[in-house]
Amino acid sequence: MAANANNGNQEFIRHIFFVLVENRSGVLARVAGLFSARGYNIESLSVAETENPQVSRMTIVVPGDRSIMNQVRKQLGKLVDTLEVHDFSVEDRDIVDREMILVKVSADNGTKRTQILQIADVYRAKIVNLSERSMIVEATGNQGKIHALLRCLDPYGILEVARSGRVAMARGIVEET
Amino acid sequence: MAANANNGNQEFIRHIFFVLVENRSGVLARVAGLFSARGYNIESLSVAETENPQVSRMTIVVPGDRSIMNQVRKQLGKLVDTLEVHDFSVEDRDIVDREMILVKVSADNGTKRTQILQIADVYRAKIVNLSERSMIVEATGNQGKIHALLRCLDPYGILEVARSGRVAMARGIVEET
Repeated sequence: MAANANNGNQEFIRHIFFVLVENRSGVLARVAGLFSARGYNIESLSVAETENPQVSRMTIVVPGDRSIMNQVRKQLGKLVDTLEVHDFSVEDRDIVDREMILVKVSADNGTKRTQILQIADVYRAKIVNLSERSMIVEATGNQGKIHALLRCLDPYGILEVARSGRVAMARGIVEET
Repeated sequence: MAANANNGNQEFIRHIFFVLVENRSGVLARVAGLFSARGYNIESLSVAETENPQVSRMTIVVPGDRSIMNQVRKQLGKLVDTLEVHDFSVEDRDIVDREMILVKVSADNGTKRTQILQIADVYRAKIVNLSERSMIVEATGNQGKIHALLRCLDPYGILEVARSGRVAMARGIVEET
């Protein structure tokens, strides 16, 4: 029981929102405002055009209380720019949940470089830049894989990390409603 | 001259902002608000934790007039939560600029599946889901590669696209100031 950080009836989980919105000015500020108005911090967010340039797609990850996040989901759905909204973490849906990471690692000699190349190979990662003193490793995967890679690279000296934020998609074919 | 869409003295380019901010509630809404207040539409944005969980890193892509985007950059720098801000598109810096895409493609028979696997192989893409009727292809690369892959997959029937937004990082070692 001591290990349970829940407070009373609150059910604190990491929510993964999938939101389709009209691709126009101000939408992102309004969406982000719904979370900040309640003091919730967005852990990661990624937004970009879809196959239809009029429509943008967001994946938003927010740790939060389930009932409050349920309210936020409803309010997201009421925004005039919102076309579709789901909370993948509470819906019973099988999803693909991936992230891209760029890691700049110190590599100022041949031995380090060889070892980092071997790690990259095991993680099916790519070297996207190689300079005299550093390398940039690009990898994709779920959270577990990304964290494991960072732990492997840590001893070489991590200089810089850039993550895309999680991108989620339902598996199989979703029937449009 | 007819091909030049510029209006008067405006210099309209695609700006790539790199922003380091304190990882706390409300920061994203404030940052997005600076762009929407001027009627500018964020084309893509990705934000996530860095190697330091207290700090988040954003890559924001916004097509806009150079002088107005220069004002926005200065205002970004004045936000209390901002630790560092750069406009990679106007600074003379060599960058790595990558994106991840998930594409769900119709693949309801073995022939289609084989052909899609071959395309994925050429693009060094991964199949992250395979169902009876569809496949999810994951690829990373610059804008040109992403668009070329989408054109190759288009004839099979693209069902869904999720993009991470661009993630940019300066090449080599940047001396911290």
